Amino acid sequence: MSLTDSAAVDVARSASLASRRLAILSNDARNEALTALHHALDKNRATILAANAKDVESATRAAESGNLSHSVLKRLDLSRPGKYEDMLEGILSVRDLPDPIGRVTLRTLLDDGLSLERVSCPIGVLLIIFEARPEVIANIAALAIKSGNAAILKGGKESMESFVAIANVVSEAIATSQVPVASIQLVKTRDVVSSLLAQDALIDLVIPRGSNELVRFVKENTKIPVLGHADGLCSAYIHSDANIETAVKVIVDSKTDYPAACNSLESLLVHEDVLESVFPAVVEALVSKGVSLRCDTASRTTLTKTLPAEKAAQVQAATESDYDTEFLDLVLAVKTVPSTNPPISAVDAAIAHINAHSSKHTDIILTESKEAADLFTSGIDSAGVFWNASTRFADGMRYGFGTEVGISTNKIHSRGPVGLEGLTIYKYLIRGQGHRAGDYYEGEGGRKYLHTSLPTGQ
Amino acid sequence: MSLTDSAAVDVARSASLASRRLAILSNDARNEALTALHHALDKNRATILAANAKDVESATRAAESGNLSHSVLKRLDLSRPGKYEDMLEGILSVRDLPDPIGRVTLRTLLDDGLSLERVSCPIGVLLIIFEARPEVIANIAALAIKSGNAAILKGGKESMESFVAIANVVSEAIATSQVPVASIQLVKTRDVVSSLLAQDALIDLVIPRGSNELVRFVKENTKIPVLGHADGLCSAYIHSDANIETAVKVIVDSKTDYPAACNSLESLLVHEDVLESVFPAVVEALVSKGVSLRCDTASRTTLTKTLPAEKAAQVQAATESDYDTEFLDLVLAVKTVPSTNPPISAVDAAIAHINAHSSKHTDIILTESKEAADLFTSGIDSAGVFWNASTRFADGMRYGFGTEVGISTNKIHSRGPVGLEGLTIYKYLIRGQGHRAGDYYEGEGGRKYLHTSLPTGQ
Repeated sequence: MSLTDSAAVDVARSASLASRRLAILSNDARNEALTALHHALDKNRATILAANAKDVESATRAAESGNLSHSVLKRLDLSRPGKYEDMLEGILSVRDLPDPIGRVTLRTLLDDGLSLERVSCPIGVLLIIFEARPEVIANIAALAIKSGNAAILKGGKESMESFVAIANVVSEAIATSQVPVASIQLVKTRDVVSSLLAQDALIDLVIPRGSNELVRFVKENTKIPVLGHADGLCSAYIHSDANIETAVKVIVDSKTDYPAACNSLESLLVHEDVLESVFPAVVEALVSKGVSLRCDTASRTTLTKTLPAEKAAQVQAATESDYDTEFLDLVLAVKTVPSTNPPISAVDAAIAHINAHSSKHTDIILTESKEAADLFTSGIDSAGVFWNASTRFADGMRYGFGTEVGISTNKIHSRGPVGLEGLTIYKYLIRGQGHRAGDYYEGEGGRKYLHTSLPTGQ
Repeated sequence: MSLTDSAAVDVARSASLASRRLAILSNDARNEALTALHHALDKNRATILAANAKDVESATRAAESGNLSHSVLKRLDLSRPGKYEDMLEGILSVRDLPDPIGRVTLRTLLDDGLSLERVSCPIGVLLIIFEARPEVIANIAALAIKSGNAAILKGGKESMESFVAIANVVSEAIATSQVPVASIQLVKTRDVVSSLLAQDALIDLVIPRGSNELVRFVKENTKIPVLGHADGLCSAYIHSDANIETAVKVIVDSKTDYPAACNSLESLLVHEDVLESVFPAVVEALVSKGVSLRCDTASRTTLTKTLPAEKAAQVQAATESDYDTEFLDLVLAVKTVPSTNPPISAVDAAIAHINAHSSKHTDIILTESKEAADLFTSGIDSAGVFWNASTRFADGMRYGFGTEVGISTNKIHSRGPVGLEGLTIYKYLIRGQGHRAGDYYEGEGGRKYLHTSLPTGQ
């Protein structure tokens, strides 16, 4: 075992032991640690901002020499107005969420004096790998403690000074509480990541927060379950009966509200029957917002007839790969769905295209028909399926979760925006009075199970 | 791509497409397919039993020449009294379970005319790999159809004739219903398994049902999530205040009711204070049932004083590896937990041992103290934690789930006995009226979310 491997085992094992101590703490004890964390980050603002300034200085030099994008530089800077306050506020809002642990979700009386409960509990040890945002460490520490999980954190090299400063404050704050210090551990060296990804016996869940490349790397290099999404290829389908005004509002918001977000629209399917009615109005609004279109032949032919010449340059012919591309920019792929008899079959065609090309994140339909909407929402295999509403609503804060761990395109455990609940699992508790399974059998003398469902008190 | 790989892709892709058709079917439509399946298996009993007789004949020869265990031979035989009826009955009882699909588990009014729902839905495509029991194909087909999932099935070579006969009947029965025929596919060749395990883009969950070796092989060879358990190393802890009668009843049932089961007891921890009171009574009862003990020094020393000489042979010294061994036989490892001050700390020591050695399946405590029981149930990191009840209750039928897909020792998605619910996930549905996310912001003119929690109607 290399030094790196043994360091990873030490980190993972101490996190695992800490997680078991954390699992028995009350909500009050976990909340007290969060209050202490908030207080310490508030008190040590100057130290943390000074460390952050060093990161920003290095990053500014890197950006000037073209080695770092300006968006990374911007995300790095904790001194921007309101950013530090938001970080502090976030800890208190996580603290004040309902306790996700100890919730009884099933209660059954198996027999006299023998009861079964399904009770929510922490997952155990989380490994969080993230990139430039230094405030994520405070956010994740708060989420982990609130949900009773230990967390191992690995940040990007650009924000190393900030991470170290924040991590020190986090450790000192936790040390004053009942939460074990090893519950939150910062890993500084990059080469330990691969070794940590191999600790599937000790680490229960990996959450990569950052670029598609980061998520893909993590998914390819571990047997630990990964919660996240590599791509956000969201699609919209305008059905033959779509309302023009609704379609324009929803499509423009989906595409232009924040084009770099994973819940932005990347592909538009248009029913053939509305190519000359709803579609030109949508395009007009998109083009005036600076959106370029990659169109199939039918939709492009329509636009050459209706679009003013000075805007025609924003419309190009699509290639097949455009329907598999997450542009993250003011570019939209467009495809025509042929008219069918019966009309509802066109929805099937749209569903088939989307299931084949989307990333199972969020897809929407614009229609006035409940039948079409119901078919679409059950047929589409994605975490979010919306009817006459923008893809941009796919977000934990907008869903009312109070916080968001990330967005998952997994098919098991947690899907879509993941709140605190996604960091929990359950265990089954049986309370008996010396009950033996061997006493229950068919025939004379055998006991029968009652299996009486009891209220869970939720 | 090899021929095997391309065959696997074909199977997985057709299953994936079928799963999307299946996902839009009503409970009635899925139930009709199960009724048809039941009817067809009843009608074709002679054909299936004839095929099964061939498997039994080959297996009998293999068993006689020592190449197959008699327990496999026994599991193979569908003509044993009641076995075929149980298979038929199982299909109807799955059919009559509540619909696991379309259940609304969260409903929030985001704003006027904008609602969010979390709705249960099928996972998609399951790959089920199993060994000798031919009736599993009918059972799994029923579970998959009921939960709206497509299933690819790979059985063991010993039951090939039975599988093919049952699979033909299943396909014919499904063809008379709205369920797509490709929803249930049987894979016959062994070499296609590795290729199927590589189809993580098309297959959503693998469920290995069989030996520990099978489960380990699957876990080591796929990036698809695996639902199952390789080991069932269950432990019991007798606390200082345990009731003698309760301890004897529960421990004997846990160990001897069915020693080869994954929910049987393998390790016993005994508090030092009860080594000469509760422990000898437990041992007396175990030894009289033929159980051999592997004891640490303290517990062994006690037994040499109390146990009659003719039974001393059943007590041996334990080695460290005994505490990590799933005996699946009438053998039990015993370890003493030292007396502590305060007494509750002994529970911590028991928890630490169990978390380090158990397979996270089911662990129990024998105590009269609620404080000790609460500490144990929150501190133990296992799917089942029982107080004064036998480990043998860890079972889907005993829990009242009506059916059991398997038992999971995973830390995410599903834990413990997995019923139909474990074959579902959820999606988020938003219904709007042209709502834009960009309309919601702080400050003048910005809309605010309502986030009103609505009843789910459950």
